[in-house]
Amino acid sequence: MSAFDNIRPIQWEHGKLRLIDQRILPQSETWLEYEASADVADAITSMVVRGAPAIGITAAYGVVLAAQRRYRESADGWRSAIEDDLKYLAASRPTAVNLFWAIERMRGVIESVAVGGPGPALLAEAQHIHQEDVAANLRMGELGAALIEGEGGGILTHCNAGALATGGYGTALGVIRSAFAAGKTAMVYADETRPWMQGARLTAWEMVHDDIPVTLLADGAAAYLMKQGKVQWVVVGSDRIAANGDVANKIGTYSAALAARYHGVKFMVVAPTSTVDMSVASGGEIPIESRSTDEILGLAGQRIAAEKAQAWNPVFDVTPADLVDAIVTEKGVVLNPNTEKMAVMMKS
Amino acid sequence: MSAFDNIRPIQWEHGKLRLIDQRILPQSETWLEYEASADVADAITSMVVRGAPAIGITAAYGVVLAAQRRYRESADGWRSAIEDDLKYLAASRPTAVNLFWAIERMRGVIESVAVGGPGPALLAEAQHIHQEDVAANLRMGELGAALIEGEGGGILTHCNAGALATGGYGTALGVIRSAFAAGKTAMVYADETRPWMQGARLTAWEMVHDDIPVTLLADGAAAYLMKQGKVQWVVVGSDRIAANGDVANKIGTYSAALAARYHGVKFMVVAPTSTVDMSVASGGEIPIESRSTDEILGLAGQRIAAEKAQAWNPVFDVTPADLVDAIVTEKGVVLNPNTEKMAVMMKS
Repeated sequence: MSAFDNIRPIQWEHGKLRLIDQRILPQSETWLEYEASADVADAITSMVVRGAPAIGITAAYGVVLAAQRRYRESADGWRSAIEDDLKYLAASRPTAVNLFWAIERMRGVIESVAVGGPGPALLAEAQHIHQEDVAANLRMGELGAALIEGEGGGILTHCNAGALATGGYGTALGVIRSAFAAGKTAMVYADETRPWMQGARLTAWEMVHDDIPVTLLADGAAAYLMKQGKVQWVVVGSDRIAANGDVANKIGTYSAALAARYHGVKFMVVAPTSTVDMSVASGGEIPIESRSTDEILGLAGQRIAAEKAQAWNPVFDVTPADLVDAIVTEKGVVLNPNTEKMAVMMKS
Repeated sequence: MSAFDNIRPIQWEHGKLRLIDQRILPQSETWLEYEASADVADAITSMVVRGAPAIGITAAYGVVLAAQRRYRESADGWRSAIEDDLKYLAASRPTAVNLFWAIERMRGVIESVAVGGPGPALLAEAQHIHQEDVAANLRMGELGAALIEGEGGGILTHCNAGALATGGYGTALGVIRSAFAAGKTAMVYADETRPWMQGARLTAWEMVHDDIPVTLLADGAAAYLMKQGKVQWVVVGSDRIAANGDVANKIGTYSAALAARYHGVKFMVVAPTSTVDMSVASGGEIPIESRSTDEILGLAGQRIAAEKAQAWNPVFDVTPADLVDAIVTEKGVVLNPNTEKMAVMMKS
């Protein structure tokens, strides 16, 4: 286990789900408690918790809460009644496939539960999903860090694919943690990541927490940073990877990938196989969430743009596989991904 | 004259310089008055006024105020005493060459002023600089719009190179105004332009003011917008253009230029010849201002990044000439700029 392994954004305690409120980090470390699956779904929608793997884990615990309640209401009818809860959870956010993947895994247990109540079996499965995710991150940290050559280089990351976005340790930040521990990076450059500022608020907080030097920059400055030779790798997470290796990730990732290719900077995507959607042939088929234009028309809750100005606020973009040098999953590394290589990795 | 010609951010009235405070636009349209050149220099530094041509014009009026005061203090010694004022004005911001250009033009008048006080001659020169700038913008509007083919296309701009950044009408936004009047564009996409939000605050305000449809987006979303075929041109201003056609402009411009080239979107730079610095062979020699890291570590005046997080806040970047399809000045259009073509244009 790593020394950098104690940020846990999702906790199950005394029959309740606890989430650290990521909307107000790092100013306030506030934990919110959930006992109803609808509230869990709303927490995902409102981004109390965010990050594809973390959304999946949270939804799994949401299913536990739903089953407990439905079973209390009707020991006979809970299996049909819970369908509404699963639908509501699945509708909480559209892009991160881990959400649907986790709900399907939980559905498998729902179908196989014997008499006596679904609570224990479902909780065990949710906790299994949670633990698997942390284990996957630690494994990906090793695999990804092994790709990084030299000592003391610079790594650029976008958004937050850290402990906060996962069960713990992180995907992209897991690789960065492992690379830092191995002396392979001396400075993490973090795009601030407009409009939600995951880089400025969450990634910087995680890096400071682990005493890893971090420098924030405006998203638009990343290309100019690369031009100056400050970074050798861009390392990011993903919300959904298509069968051909196209990568949906936070808006701005595609821009960073283009700049990386132009400057000869390597581009690594780190995500567990639960993020890979083999049912989607290419990135063009991935549904891309748009959020409120208020996030662009305002700043810190205050409108700053003139009335009548419009806004476009896609939350994610798609980076084509041919701009990706490596996809790292817990099953292994896919260099220069394509459909064939992705299929081989997924079947391994 | 155009229908879109009534935003004037710099005004001289009753012996005082009046500037609209661009730090608080569009929430508040507040005019500040200046009677001392040191205060004018501070207004430039603190970005009450910004934009390369506007900085030049403002500095010219600052020289008028300095000369009037120094002449009142000493009708004999004012020419040597004013040197301190010129130095202080020149130190207000480092990148926009229009500042130094305007001060040198005013120095020429200082040297040639006959007996009787420098005020009238210097004021006439400052007003001449001001009027020339507006005329140059109207001319560049025509020249730039003529490069845009088709009808109703999309144009992306970055930062604010509008009336507010100039004497009036604007450089990049002048081209956009002319293109909109000619039916060549139906939608202006404006990067919000972190960290100072010139796009969200100033460009959107100018476009709404003139009933030109404007859609704001996060800077990181520009590449994804281009991928969707929404824009045919990127049109930006500049703070300094080197002799070889390399372009210093607001941080994020280089990133947009890279994405434009990748997507076959054309890239136009619009700036008066006062922005061209023939003494600088290439962009690498242009001094790039860095501003306070507070602009990155905080949002709307509140710290949002964890303590100990560092930040990198270059205000400008350099786009190499080979990514520029056209440089438009009041003297003409330079396609695919290089040192030879730039020299020919400047001598014309």
